[in-house]
Amino acid sequence: MRIARFSIDGNVAFGAVEGEGPDGLVLDIIKGIPYAEFELSGTKVPLNKVRLLPPVLPNKVVAIGRNYAEHAAELGNEVPDVPVAFFKPTTSVIGSGDAIEYPSFSNELHHEAELAVVIGRMCREVPRERVKDVVFGYTCANDVTARDVQKREKQWARAKGFDTSCPLGPWVETDLDPHDLTIQATVNGEQRQLGRTSDMIRSIEDLVVHITEAMTLLPGDVILTGTPAGVGPLHVGDEVAVTIEGIGTLTNKVIKRG
Amino acid sequence: MRIARFSIDGNVAFGAVEGEGPDGLVLDIIKGIPYAEFELSGTKVPLNKVRLLPPVLPNKVVAIGRNYAEHAAELGNEVPDVPVAFFKPTTSVIGSGDAIEYPSFSNELHHEAELAVVIGRMCREVPRERVKDVVFGYTCANDVTARDVQKREKQWARAKGFDTSCPLGPWVETDLDPHDLTIQATVNGEQRQLGRTSDMIRSIEDLVVHITEAMTLLPGDVILTGTPAGVGPLHVGDEVAVTIEGIGTLTNKVIKRG
Repeated sequence: MRIARFSIDGNVAFGAVEGEGPDGLVLDIIKGIPYAEFELSGTKVPLNKVRLLPPVLPNKVVAIGRNYAEHAAELGNEVPDVPVAFFKPTTSVIGSGDAIEYPSFSNELHHEAELAVVIGRMCREVPRERVKDVVFGYTCANDVTARDVQKREKQWARAKGFDTSCPLGPWVETDLDPHDLTIQATVNGEQRQLGRTSDMIRSIEDLVVHITEAMTLLPGDVILTGTPAGVGPLHVGDEVAVTIEGIGTLTNKVIKRG
Repeated sequence: MRIARFSIDGNVAFGAVEGEGPDGLVLDIIKGIPYAEFELSGTKVPLNKVRLLPPVLPNKVVAIGRNYAEHAAELGNEVPDVPVAFFKPTTSVIGSGDAIEYPSFSNELHHEAELAVVIGRMCREVPRERVKDVVFGYTCANDVTARDVQKREKQWARAKGFDTSCPLGPWVETDLDPHDLTIQATVNGEQRQLGRTSDMIRSIEDLVVHITEAMTLLPGDVILTGTPAGVGPLHVGDEVAVTIEGIGTLTNKVIKRG
């Protein structure tokens, strides 16, 4: 099932995405919240009449750097012995269709297309064989990065944590085998990144074990699993789209702040 | 005013701390939440009858590394050209009296006593002269760090973000000039860290400007301002106390997880 979060006439709701094609999609409004038992209301609204919101309200976003060998190499980095884990704050999260604001303190903004894992249950010290039980679903992410700031500042709170730096969406797909999907980024319709999730150095299972060895994950928390090769610049006016096979497309325009 | 958050008989409330001495302190229960207009109810409970909770519910904790020259030197680090900013997740926050759980993946746990700035208003791109308007108050923090993990892992999400790694408390002091206060840490009553907030390399004003250049801060968000020299090991069974002049003492015991 595909679960979106959206607003219409000032009301916010979750809905199951049904139908086909850009204009045929409708949202069946969900009663309750999708992490628990829920029902479909049967009340449907056309997708093109709503504003999509970030499909989850994370308590935290844990992101992983250098998880595709070709991407590590393109930035001159070695594949790390242990996963590189960092946080993106909740204030950085936006939905599909929202604008990425070019940060005032950077001159080198980059896209990074990533598969995002959405957690469905509070969990800690998850054994590898139980990872599937704590995952709610998958969505597309763009780990938007101020590359020049990342090079200057030892920790990446500003380079990867500025407002609007974490587009998520368009919805969460709950029925998906994530292990061998194409993942791509286009800028203004031109392909920039292309990879397969099977090329991850550490699997989703590895990452959940690694992260939850240290910290509790809560329903709605998100893990970004790293980006394949092909990262590159974004400019004001660009439209960047992240597409993952079996999920959909996350689209955001880059604007000047202010 | 000193504002604590506490639980008693399963109810959670904010209260203004009044009175003197370890057994004379009482909490005047606050109607509403302290970031907005609020009233004291006049209903008072003795402080020693309640469980203190983290005095704030942050959306995010932004921490600053290497902000005291002597501390940077003791770990063999240079003073960075720009502040080193990183996040501690909300799942790491505990209150005074709560236990620090020694992480299973570390053999070198360190205390780091820090002045914590509590934000009172949603803000972004705060000019230096307006910083005082967005600060709600100050509390004590311990940026508990798995030093061996910090050395091994390029980004510090696990080393400084594990559950219980962010003790905050005992309360927020809203009437305080933070610019020249003694800050100390003791372990089992023995002094380990001693510094003055006047030795910060970047002032509170600098840090708020630097952070909010990139991201929105929300009421209850917390900035940890760095630790003075004298960081050192914590072992299971230790009691670590952070005392800041004009605020109070944050005390936590280290336990084995499990």
